Amino acid sequence: MSGRSTALNRSSRCEHTVSDHAASPASVHEMEIRVRYQETDGQRRVHHANYLTYFEMGRTEMLRAHGQTYRDFEDAGLFMVVSEASCRYQAPAEYDDLLVLRTRVEKITAASIRHGYELIRDRRIIATGTTVVVCVDREGRIRRLPDWIVGG
Amino acid sequence: MSGRSTALNRSSRCEHTVSDHAASPASVHEMEIRVRYQETDGQRRVHHANYLTYFEMGRTEMLRAHGQTYRDFEDAGLFMVVSEASCRYQAPAEYDDLLVLRTRVEKITAASIRHGYELIRDRRIIATGTTVVVCVDREGRIRRLPDWIVGG
Amino acid sequence: MSGRSTALNRSSRCEHTVSDHAASPASVHEMEIRVRYQETDGQRRVHHANYLTYFEMGRTEMLRAHGQTYRDFEDAGLFMVVSEASCRYQAPAEYDDLLVLRTRVEKITAASIRHGYELIRDRRIIATGTTVVVCVDREGRIRRLPDWIVGG
Amino acid sequence: MSGRSTALNRSSRCEHTVSDHAASPASVHEMEIRVRYQETDGQRRVHHANYLTYFEMGRTEMLRAHGQTYRDFEDAGLFMVVSEASCRYQAPAEYDDLLVLRTRVEKITAASIRHGYELIRDRRIIATGTTVVVCVDREGRIRRLPDWIVGG
Repeated sequence: MSGRSTALNRSSRCEHTVSDHAASPASVHEMEIRVRYQETDGQRRVHHANYLTYFEMGRTEMLRAHGQTYRDFEDAGLFMVVSEASCRYQAPAEYDDLLVLRTRVEKITAASIRHGYELIRDRRIIATGTTVVVCVDREGRIRRLPDWIVGG
Repeated sequence: MSGRSTALNRSSRCEHTVSDHAASPASVHEMEIRVRYQETDGQRRVHHANYLTYFEMGRTEMLRAHGQTYRDFEDAGLFMVVSEASCRYQAPAEYDDLLVLRTRVEKITAASIRHGYELIRDRRIIATGTTVVVCVDREGRIRRLPDWIVGG
Repeated sequence: MSGRSTALNRSSRCEHTVSDHAASPASVHEMEIRVRYQETDGQRRVHHANYLTYFEMGRTEMLRAHGQTYRDFEDAGLFMVVSEASCRYQAPAEYDDLLVLRTRVEKITAASIRHGYELIRDRRIIATGTTVVVCVDREGRIRRLPDWIVGG
Repeated sequence: MSGRSTALNRSSRCEHTVSDHAASPASVHEMEIRVRYQETDGQRRVHHANYLTYFEMGRTEMLRAHGQTYRDFEDAGLFMVVSEASCRYQAPAEYDDLLVLRTRVEKITAASIRHGYELIRDRRIIATGTTVVVCVDREGRIRRLPDWIVGG
């Protein structure tokens, strides 16, 4: 078990580069994801739609690593809705693989955040992706991102 | 395409037996489900958790066949929460199989409904299941089922 | 039920424009998708990852409308793996919505196909997307697309 | 992050009671599961089908805690197929909840294993379940469980 525990200790790590404030474009978050059997398909690979779910986990855990939770965000009446998503699949991921997901904030506007993602297995990038999430209220109107997200 | 259209014409059929009022324990609903690639797993079979999603589709379409929708139900501030679910898997379902799901109301109490399910391929039952759903309000309190569900 | 049956009769329709051979860039396929409760998330919308599953259903049914099945394709030892996917989400889809998915072949190369997608509700486009699938064999080596797919 | 790391250190723990050999009915495995947004549905709860996926994770991690992996099992040409599954849902799980899944081997026969599960949040059981998995070969024929699983 020790190997795995070590791995899990590293999970949800946040590294700061150059500028050192949270959620800035310079920050990078890493977490580990163990591929579930349910996530594979008849090709014995992770079904491609699940990568978007992995990316969402990256956003969630990046926020938590900065001391916030997306649950708090929704409890405050704000929601992040995905307006764009893309992924390039370079090598398959298989059941039980232990992947590293690297999440970066690439761009922040008044009401949206663009994240970039790298999915890594054995130090090799197997997929890259981007998403744009937009901040809306309960009625679906676009709202400014709260300062605690923008400013970190 | 004609074969498929014929099949789809039959989808969401409701047969009445013995007593002839809707949603009674005697009513049976049938619908067709085409297995999606995403629903399979590394064993090239439908992942077993998806059967519960199929059963939910059976409940939804049975209600629609009686002229109601579960969406209306939620819009009225009521929710059906699943309190029990079980499934026996007798033969695998594979990608692209065209399955028939047969849904029955087995028992109705003041606040709950027990459904029974048969999943069929080529006239052979490949799985059976049951669920119990309980009627609650927004706060999660148990509520009486509305008359239009009970009485049909 | 008649309304729904009518709708389902229309499902998986294939319209030809300009040039009239199957699977050419000019062909367009349409199918209907009823949103499942399981596909929604805590925002009461279809979770964004499910759109990629819808697109996959569009590819499957487009092939079937041309008299082939993707199952036959795999039985012949060939696999379509997704190398790129993207989606722009313009308006949310909700539980029980009856959506129309329009699938187009945008480009065919020796070993890959680029599809474009429009997801429509009430004659309004709510999302657009693209995927690139690549033909590989059991060992994952890139292979030429069989003639029956390219030539239609 | 320390709180979470502590939690993760405890993940995938295996406690032995009374008799002290692995995979015996007396062994209990515990792991933590963070609820993903994608796992919730329009009721803002974990969709009930996902509990079966959680249980599968429990089986996988229990095996790993005993020094084996289910991947090895499949690589040896054997498969565990689910023949029965059931769940009782007592209280909802919500997005971002940190759950504890407790997995027990309840019964082992020549070719099958019955597991029992408890899903716990804040020291309270919110769901219980059972599954029966059967050992089959590539052709789907029932096979004896290998000694390393039975004898531990």
